Amino acid sequence: MDKIRFGVAYYDEYMPCERLNEDVKMMKKAGINTVRIAESAWSTYEPQEGTFDFSHVLRVMDAMEGEGMDVIIGTPTYAIPSWMEKSYPDILAETREGRGIYGPRQIMDITHPVYLFYAERVIRKLMECTAHRKCVVGFQLDNETKYYQTAGKNVQRQFVKYLREKFRDNLDAMNAEFGLNYWSNRVNAWEDFPDVRGTINGSLGAEFEKFQRSLVTKFLNWQADIVNEYRREEQFVTHNLDYEWRGYSYGIQPFVDHKEAAKCLTVAGCDIYHPSQDELTGTEIAFGGDIVRCLKQDNYLVLETAAQGFPCWTPYKGQLRLQAYSHLASGACGIEYWHWHSIHNACETYWKGLLSHDFAENATYLESCRIGKEFAGLQEHLLGLKKENEAAVLVSNEALTALNWFGIEADAGGSKPGGVDYNDVFRWIYDALYRMNVECDIIWPDEQNLLKYKIIFTPALYAASDELLNRLNEYVKQGGTLVSTFKTGFVNEHVKVSYQVQPRILRECMGVRYHQFAFPKNVGLAGKIIEGVRNREAKAFMELLIPEGARTLAVYEHDAWKEYAAVTKNRFGDGNGYYIGCMTDSELLGKILEDALQAAGVGREVTEEFPVIVRKGVNGLGRRLWYYLNYSDGEQNAVYVGKDGCDILTGNSVREKEGLMIPAWDLRIVEEENFWD
Amino acid sequence: MDKIRFGVAYYDEYMPCERLNEDVKMMKKAGINTVRIAESAWSTYEPQEGTFDFSHVLRVMDAMEGEGMDVIIGTPTYAIPSWMEKSYPDILAETREGRGIYGPRQIMDITHPVYLFYAERVIRKLMECTAHRKCVVGFQLDNETKYYQTAGKNVQRQFVKYLREKFRDNLDAMNAEFGLNYWSNRVNAWEDFPDVRGTINGSLGAEFEKFQRSLVTKFLNWQADIVNEYRREEQFVTHNLDYEWRGYSYGIQPFVDHKEAAKCLTVAGCDIYHPSQDELTGTEIAFGGDIVRCLKQDNYLVLETAAQGFPCWTPYKGQLRLQAYSHLASGACGIEYWHWHSIHNACETYWKGLLSHDFAENATYLESCRIGKEFAGLQEHLLGLKKENEAAVLVSNEALTALNWFGIEADAGGSKPGGVDYNDVFRWIYDALYRMNVECDIIWPDEQNLLKYKIIFTPALYAASDELLNRLNEYVKQGGTLVSTFKTGFVNEHVKVSYQVQPRILRECMGVRYHQFAFPKNVGLAGKIIEGVRNREAKAFMELLIPEGARTLAVYEHDAWKEYAAVTKNRFGDGNGYYIGCMTDSELLGKILEDALQAAGVGREVTEEFPVIVRKGVNGLGRRLWYYLNYSDGEQNAVYVGKDGCDILTGNSVREKEGLMIPAWDLRIVEEENFWD
Amino acid sequence: MDKIRFGVAYYDEYMPCERLNEDVKMMKKAGINTVRIAESAWSTYEPQEGTFDFSHVLRVMDAMEGEGMDVIIGTPTYAIPSWMEKSYPDILAETREGRGIYGPRQIMDITHPVYLFYAERVIRKLMECTAHRKCVVGFQLDNETKYYQTAGKNVQRQFVKYLREKFRDNLDAMNAEFGLNYWSNRVNAWEDFPDVRGTINGSLGAEFEKFQRSLVTKFLNWQADIVNEYRREEQFVTHNLDYEWRGYSYGIQPFVDHKEAAKCLTVAGCDIYHPSQDELTGTEIAFGGDIVRCLKQDNYLVLETAAQGFPCWTPYKGQLRLQAYSHLASGACGIEYWHWHSIHNACETYWKGLLSHDFAENATYLESCRIGKEFAGLQEHLLGLKKENEAAVLVSNEALTALNWFGIEADAGGSKPGGVDYNDVFRWIYDALYRMNVECDIIWPDEQNLLKYKIIFTPALYAASDELLNRLNEYVKQGGTLVSTFKTGFVNEHVKVSYQVQPRILRECMGVRYHQFAFPKNVGLAGKIIEGVRNREAKAFMELLIPEGARTLAVYEHDAWKEYAAVTKNRFGDGNGYYIGCMTDSELLGKILEDALQAAGVGREVTEEFPVIVRKGVNGLGRRLWYYLNYSDGEQNAVYVGKDGCDILTGNSVREKEGLMIPAWDLRIVEEENFWD
Repeated sequence: MDKIRFGVAYYDEYMPCERLNEDVKMMKKAGINTVRIAESAWSTYEPQEGTFDFSHVLRVMDAMEGEGMDVIIGTPTYAIPSWMEKSYPDILAETREGRGIYGPRQIMDITHPVYLFYAERVIRKLMECTAHRKCVVGFQLDNETKYYQTAGKNVQRQFVKYLREKFRDNLDAMNAEFGLNYWSNRVNAWEDFPDVRGTINGSLGAEFEKFQRSLVTKFLNWQADIVNEYRREEQFVTHNLDYEWRGYSYGIQPFVDHKEAAKCLTVAGCDIYHPSQDELTGTEIAFGGDIVRCLKQDNYLVLETAAQGFPCWTPYKGQLRLQAYSHLASGACGIEYWHWHSIHNACETYWKGLLSHDFAENATYLESCRIGKEFAGLQEHLLGLKKENEAAVLVSNEALTALNWFGIEADAGGSKPGGVDYNDVFRWIYDALYRMNVECDIIWPDEQNLLKYKIIFTPALYAASDELLNRLNEYVKQGGTLVSTFKTGFVNEHVKVSYQVQPRILRECMGVRYHQFAFPKNVGLAGKIIEGVRNREAKAFMELLIPEGARTLAVYEHDAWKEYAAVTKNRFGDGNGYYIGCMTDSELLGKILEDALQAAGVGREVTEEFPVIVRKGVNGLGRRLWYYLNYSDGEQNAVYVGKDGCDILTGNSVREKEGLMIPAWDLRIVEEENFWD
Repeated sequence: MDKIRFGVAYYDEYMPCERLNEDVKMMKKAGINTVRIAESAWSTYEPQEGTFDFSHVLRVMDAMEGEGMDVIIGTPTYAIPSWMEKSYPDILAETREGRGIYGPRQIMDITHPVYLFYAERVIRKLMECTAHRKCVVGFQLDNETKYYQTAGKNVQRQFVKYLREKFRDNLDAMNAEFGLNYWSNRVNAWEDFPDVRGTINGSLGAEFEKFQRSLVTKFLNWQADIVNEYRREEQFVTHNLDYEWRGYSYGIQPFVDHKEAAKCLTVAGCDIYHPSQDELTGTEIAFGGDIVRCLKQDNYLVLETAAQGFPCWTPYKGQLRLQAYSHLASGACGIEYWHWHSIHNACETYWKGLLSHDFAENATYLESCRIGKEFAGLQEHLLGLKKENEAAVLVSNEALTALNWFGIEADAGGSKPGGVDYNDVFRWIYDALYRMNVECDIIWPDEQNLLKYKIIFTPALYAASDELLNRLNEYVKQGGTLVSTFKTGFVNEHVKVSYQVQPRILRECMGVRYHQFAFPKNVGLAGKIIEGVRNREAKAFMELLIPEGARTLAVYEHDAWKEYAAVTKNRFGDGNGYYIGCMTDSELLGKILEDALQAAGVGREVTEEFPVIVRKGVNGLGRRLWYYLNYSDGEQNAVYVGKDGCDILTGNSVREKEGLMIPAWDLRIVEEENFWD
Repeated sequence: MDKIRFGVAYYDEYMPCERLNEDVKMMKKAGINTVRIAESAWSTYEPQEGTFDFSHVLRVMDAMEGEGMDVIIGTPTYAIPSWMEKSYPDILAETREGRGIYGPRQIMDITHPVYLFYAERVIRKLMECTAHRKCVVGFQLDNETKYYQTAGKNVQRQFVKYLREKFRDNLDAMNAEFGLNYWSNRVNAWEDFPDVRGTINGSLGAEFEKFQRSLVTKFLNWQADIVNEYRREEQFVTHNLDYEWRGYSYGIQPFVDHKEAAKCLTVAGCDIYHPSQDELTGTEIAFGGDIVRCLKQDNYLVLETAAQGFPCWTPYKGQLRLQAYSHLASGACGIEYWHWHSIHNACETYWKGLLSHDFAENATYLESCRIGKEFAGLQEHLLGLKKENEAAVLVSNEALTALNWFGIEADAGGSKPGGVDYNDVFRWIYDALYRMNVECDIIWPDEQNLLKYKIIFTPALYAASDELLNRLNEYVKQGGTLVSTFKTGFVNEHVKVSYQVQPRILRECMGVRYHQFAFPKNVGLAGKIIEGVRNREAKAFMELLIPEGARTLAVYEHDAWKEYAAVTKNRFGDGNGYYIGCMTDSELLGKILEDALQAAGVGREVTEEFPVIVRKGVNGLGRRLWYYLNYSDGEQNAVYVGKDGCDILTGNSVREKEGLMIPAWDLRIVEEENFWD
């Protein structure tokens, strides 16, 4: 990117009155340089089948171009016009609950040829009238694509063909690998393949979800190919990948393989929504950014994030600006608020954009003006931030899906509502690192170059192939430090529980085994490493570890389980294996991680902890940039640990070890004088 | 009415043994003078299509007539015979969840010609054998009619025609007004109109619900027309309108426009069920009565209310009598218990009538005997009570529906389960007035003569036309006092958020504006007016008010919001505008209301507060009647504030300012000597 | 049985690797002598329609036979192959929610001829290759059979025919008995009979459920008839009857009439799952055993019980052994763990068998080795335990079902989620007796010989015929002691509320009546008998009792209810009637039961209370056996109250009145020297 993109989603189609010129004027005042348009209004652009009207798109492009502003064009395919469903009701995805009723977005079958036929045509028509425009800097494919639980006969037929290929038509192999003999689910002829929506077999169910995720990849690739026919080389192709949604961006996306899906993009993009007000911690901005940055190991666009958002998120003074810089601190090269104006009808009127429904200036809008001005002035320092992290967290869609089938806290009542799941374990690890100011990369199971990290974490890597586990073993042997939690390696890539003694292949590098596990009730942890920790409760799940060479860092405090280890550390080859057998409070986890980080030799020069968050990297000028972010409503004093540099927000010089005062919900950014010195 | 109707619903059809003569005898003993029959047993009266047998009706009329008792005939159309559904399964309403299964009552499509055909015939047959009878004093149309979510193709076809007429076939106008461009919901041809059951558009959805409510009005009118062909002029036509049901009568009915529906009735009627035992407060009796009294500005019948009811309502000694008088104190001219005997089969056996299943005398029945005797003796004093209230609460079905689409506390999780909704705000205001002994009328958006009230309250009047808001503005200008809460005037009558600065047109009379709002978390209120109030927490929702001429009565106590007003008061023309920006505890609300009542010049001579409730009016003799009701398990001492009069229950004289002792769960009724003095 | 059966369910079909020989070796080490096989893998045995392959069954039988182990053959009919559903989708049960989707077990219509045709064939084929085998000691019919809510048109048609026969084609009789006039549900022609799935009539609904339960009986009889054609006389026929499932075996099974279903079995069998770890109390083992023992008044097989089970049940040291003996102490003649190895795929991988997925020895397995060894050594002393209990609890499927239709705590919101239901009242009574060490039999409404018991309890016997109540009345008159709780006798066998004064016919023996009831709120109990009891709160439901000759043992403490009795005792004829009008804490209940037990003359020589549980009986040697079981994590000291005998676990002699020390989660078993002395 040649500039920090600061922008909004803009919907001329939704306006209750003529606003365009006034809006552009207000955007200019706010320093907005890029608007995203067009992804939501197919029924406006193609009012009747084959009749097109892109006048809204054209007039917005004209207006933006006139003011030197840039435009991102979104393909309008995530919400279909009613005429299409009326003529071809089959295009609505058939799910476990049957077919939906027209109305909501994202309820079509993304594999249906009728939908694809119309989608392709409208994309081409849109590209024809936008791709050549000067203001158009890039394209967003569709919008927050998922597979929408599509599982109709056509999709299942594809799935069976996929299985036949996977198992080379060998039904015995499939039955054995998936364990279909159980409860008489064995399939003895391909034509007897039952409706997979009813299956109680986790292996088959998880495989189907994997197949469904591949449909998303395929769909985005297909759109990218169409867009690529039209776009200029300098125009980017992106998509707003998003995260597990729990009212905000919570964790790994269950319905998309981000790594695969991002391959067709020239710039990775994402949506990040997060709690605000007293709950603003920056964690979601950090993990969301770390994921999307690592997808293509490059800077990325935040295509949607809240300005005011829900009433519970109306930002306090300073928060909008703090958030904006937090994105950049993770490696973002642009931020687009969703959305410019608040919407006057339909289902999201409670959601506030940068402007309220009244289009008037308000406190949040006024803060955006400050951000825009600063970004413009500091652009060359802020752009192109690159990171070289020593730590990585390995995440896995397969593990996440498998743990949805076999809930960590599942008992006779099935998965415990509100119980711990994959993303909770991911966040448990990630959040602890974040609060300790250990920056990390996110890696996926296909990562071959593990040794570029000094330490790797595998939170609940439940499903893993032998090959991956062998690779992790080898990583330790060659000097890496591996920190694995309970539920790592339990099943293979087909969600078949291993009949090796657990933790299976990692038993070697971890020097520990277990045969049994339980839910902890009134179980504490004890060990020298966690002395002084207030809450030493074992939580959620506990494996009864038996060291085989590993050193016990903590044992269980409970009459029945006191002979078992809870946390162990093992020297294996040139590296270290840490195994954490249960969930704990984050303070306790911090002690273990600290030990592991030191064992791994990870640099721990930053002594601050949350609420002061330190993020760093090397900017486009080749200089190291240090962000000191204060996520609290009180002033914080921190110690600057970089080399002598300059506070780019004030222009003042900052010496190594100098104290940095950071006001409430504010930040300092120090650029080292010369990185290469 | 020529007498206070004291009665029960009676089901000869349900009796497990011959009871009629014995029942009549026991009724006579209890002073019962009116029974309601026939509304529930269509399958008994028309055992096969076209075969009629009204013998149960005839024998009950005979028995009642023989004893000089009156009968209300209910048309038996709310529950259909199985033969009808068996031959014409389509008559069951098709809802969002599909078609129901025969069994429950009130599940048919009230617009279906098959149903209407059979309903008309059974009504006519019933009228033929009852209308001429001496004992028959009136008719109840159907029973607690709603639209039962009917939304089949036929209903939707009617709805589209309704929209074509409303928008004069102008699709652009409809798309613009409803904001259908959003998420590609734009309708570009009438024949593309999608299944409205799936819509995510609040404007369209709310309009459909309005249309559905009109079906109820239409249906009741249609029944009234039939009944009118047969009835004698002195026979009344009524209907048991009911209220939002939360296990008891809670608030405004969402599925019926009471004001419209009542137009075809000669006497308004209602069902009121309310908590009892320690939870008996009289509030539901009061608000339910106020609503139904104001529908036709006349006395009304309580067609159903609990005798014993659920096991949690088994009345304490004195409560049944206190309740009976409470109804009269609101303007009722009759009370019918649901029901006489407890039912021995089906789904409501847990519900106790005046008699238990054993038909024996019990404590509750014995109390009814006292009531009946007193009513008979005091009839001329109790009849025809009229009120002239200075206060009114403006309620709106449109606002209620709109706030169901846009929950007050809705966030990413949608509407908050158990969260505050329209009726909660209505009850927050109404209940505070009730406990302060401020009697009020209920008015609807079409009320033209606002100036007959000194003060008007608009709880959460979320949806309102410009015309209504201008009328309210004008009301203030001409001397009225308007008290509006948060969420008033936010959207227009089509649930389109205004793009004027809020509170839109009322900004003028309120002298206040806001651009932003939030959910309060740890936010207090501060201001001289609320000094000494214990709980000063802001609740549920908060608007960040900026006074523009208004005086601030309370501000928010919170670091982030302290610059905004929470409650304001504005002099506008000859009147006052009070704006309450958030929800609060009821004590705090009381302080604000007290200030507003005084500013409005509302008479505050009654100094009692709950649990002593004072209700008054002028009876048929032209004398003012004062009810002093004690809703507590302890004796209460009150001061009588009327002119010298007579305690009609004891015959003792009562002087102005004299102390009134009221035993637990008991009451005093004082009639002024001469109202016209 | 000639030996204590100690075993596991074994699934060669599910194995991820060749294990058979190794498994047999490990079983032998554990003293396992019986494995149950074959009930789950129809799709393996009949891979295509008409093609059979029982090789897994054969090789397991070979292996077992080779080692002198026994095999129980389960008919594999509870889970159908996909080819059947694919060709005949109608075989899936049609329920209130429609037809299911293939995948789960137990979702077919057990009356469907297609299913029955294939089921019969596979049973016959299986019998042909197993019945003659030496190792095969018995057969299990199907698995945990229920009716799976089957309610399709075919089932309903049968039901209508059943009703026609029951009411001898007299519709008026049916309408009257079921009270169908209510809400126009009257059926005036058999061909108008509506879909019973929608009914709101509790009488009709409960009758349908009774009919559905009869389908289970019919189905098991049908299977037994087939099996009987093949089996040798010494081979038993059993079935694993199970209990209401609340994550474990909780109470009476709602979907099966155990008494009827067991008639076709030669040996009764059951599944018992129960909480473990700190929640292990033995109660479920006791009541489950008492029920199944009384079905045929003989010893029984526990066909499934947990070894490790859910992670929350991983047993503490000693618990597996304590449990095993607890089963025997109730009269079991065998225990089969479910299952041997933990399953590697599908939906129950979280459930641990005796072995974990790794097939390695683990703490639980090692404990089973001790059990197996002890069982083998003590066989002659442990076998054939018979009981002669003085107390009985009368349970009723009809009462249970009726109370599901009319929830004890149901109010306007319907049945209270988590509220008290039939089984809660059953467990309230049963558990109190259990903790007091009063052993009891379970009896059913058809029990004619009531006088063999000194005391009978009827927890919430809501639905009862006149005949049953008269029998109970007569029982008291002739000297029995009857203890009835609230909600006893309220409705007849057709769930029609009586119009007699309650408690109806029992009013005579109880000397008490009531007309009204309520939910207790802040209501206490007072009476000399419960002095000193800490928690004297009335719970869930309260009847306002009016003594008519009975002595009041406790009254309600509440201003409104203080005139009513809560608990009464009545001398009637030669016996006693105790009536308990409300639910209470179990300590309070204990005081009442103690009084009743003494009045009844029940032997109370055992002075221990929970956590020491004493169970006794006469073994196959004709000697009295005393089990002293310690359900706690601390050592307990008890007093042995039998005659002089021998601790069979240690061989030491034990004198009458001698102290017995029992370690944590351990037991003592004393055999009296000679019962007949």
